[in-house]
Amino acid sequence: MASPVSEEYVNLAGRLADTAREVVTPYFRRPLDIERKGDDSPVTRADREAEAAMRQIIEQTFPGHGIFGEEYGPDRADAEYVWVLDPVDGTRAFIAGLPVFGTLIALCERGRPILGVIECPAMRERWVGGAGFPTTFNGAPASTRACAGLADAILYSTTPDLFHGADQTAFSLVETMVRERRFGTDCYAYGLVASGFGDLVIEAGLKPFDYLAHLPVIEGAGGVMTDWSGNALTMDSDGRVIGAGDPRIHARTLETMRAAG
Amino acid sequence: MASPVSEEYVNLAGRLADTAREVVTPYFRRPLDIERKGDDSPVTRADREAEAAMRQIIEQTFPGHGIFGEEYGPDRADAEYVWVLDPVDGTRAFIAGLPVFGTLIALCERGRPILGVIECPAMRERWVGGAGFPTTFNGAPASTRACAGLADAILYSTTPDLFHGADQTAFSLVETMVRERRFGTDCYAYGLVASGFGDLVIEAGLKPFDYLAHLPVIEGAGGVMTDWSGNALTMDSDGRVIGAGDPRIHARTLETMRAAG
Repeated sequence: MASPVSEEYVNLAGRLADTAREVVTPYFRRPLDIERKGDDSPVTRADREAEAAMRQIIEQTFPGHGIFGEEYGPDRADAEYVWVLDPVDGTRAFIAGLPVFGTLIALCERGRPILGVIECPAMRERWVGGAGFPTTFNGAPASTRACAGLADAILYSTTPDLFHGADQTAFSLVETMVRERRFGTDCYAYGLVASGFGDLVIEAGLKPFDYLAHLPVIEGAGGVMTDWSGNALTMDSDGRVIGAGDPRIHARTLETMRAAG
Repeated sequence: MASPVSEEYVNLAGRLADTAREVVTPYFRRPLDIERKGDDSPVTRADREAEAAMRQIIEQTFPGHGIFGEEYGPDRADAEYVWVLDPVDGTRAFIAGLPVFGTLIALCERGRPILGVIECPAMRERWVGGAGFPTTFNGAPASTRACAGLADAILYSTTPDLFHGADQTAFSLVETMVRERRFGTDCYAYGLVASGFGDLVIEAGLKPFDYLAHLPVIEGAGGVMTDWSGNALTMDSDGRVIGAGDPRIHARTLETMRAAG
């Protein structure tokens, strides 16, 4: 992460998160029509309305910025600054009444995430991270915890369904080496790592709006987040991600997954 | 469930849940020494202190009642009334910073659960169910939702690690038939079914203090909870449980699992 994020961008991200919380919360645990998208992922009015509300605010505030949202796609995607939005990450959790879903907001500068927000409406919890300032959890500084080896690590992942073939083999090897492995975590896992409540998230099959917001949150808290080859995450990454609170755990995970392949 | 539960037992259960919430909450997401029990399950000061506090209240209030707790074992287990306590169900979730853990309190009359409490300190949510009164969620009536077939059902289970051999085969068959399957739910899943946010929980390898409290909560909300053969749950069940919001889903699940075996 390069130059510090402008304060007006951080303020806008906060307003977007406030808006998403306001729009999404009343829909949680209320009967909702669930539609299926092309990839069979569910979408609800909460997703659509939250994204529409956030887009409107961005367009009013920074009309030159691009927007790339899960529900309404890209607009000015070649702009220097692009806001990447997932109005409800973990729609399946949301639909199943589980509080681990959230709204994800990332700001990319020439394709690299420089600001990220994980807003969890059901928990009234929010992580904000960005270049040039430390990650916060509900406004207070957040930092990852030390974890010397995989044998001490708590690993999170949303579901075993993310992994197939060689990915599954690589994930399974890490799984056997950690202290605990928890499924069912969605975006909440990345916040927990940033706050030092857990150590590692490994996922695959993610879209840019599923992972870009997490990077500034985790790295601003002292952690490392890359793809499975150790490369920096951009809009064009392949959707395999590793987020780790302690850089040593990140390195051990990369080595282990490489050994599995 | 037979005769209505005495109001004084319901009141005591509420006091026990208040006490557990008070004891457990300050330990959530604080560094804790984690010990391992014989079966490798983790235990913390939160577990021990919450159970000790609840036991003391029961002993003062109903000295003739039995107590069977996860941490301190049985006392007067042959009494007509036995309180079955799991101070922190989902200790692994608790340790990993996830809010789905809870305190489970069941009152058994001659081995059958007649009163159950699922208290979730991190969510400040509580389900109470018992013979002769409808289940409540934070004091308001809760009821399960209609679900005609497995294709419409949301299925919860704590982790795939619960299932081995033939159990795994049976669970996997149901898994392929439901609309959504979510892992990572612990006791919270049973509350979600009682409130009609989901439809089905299937688990195995549970101890009496892991499942007895759930039965009155789910059945008092209109659902059905039995073992995998459709038998009533008692202190002596084998730890395989099915909790369903709609009796039709319970019946379909039993049939499906029987077909798998």
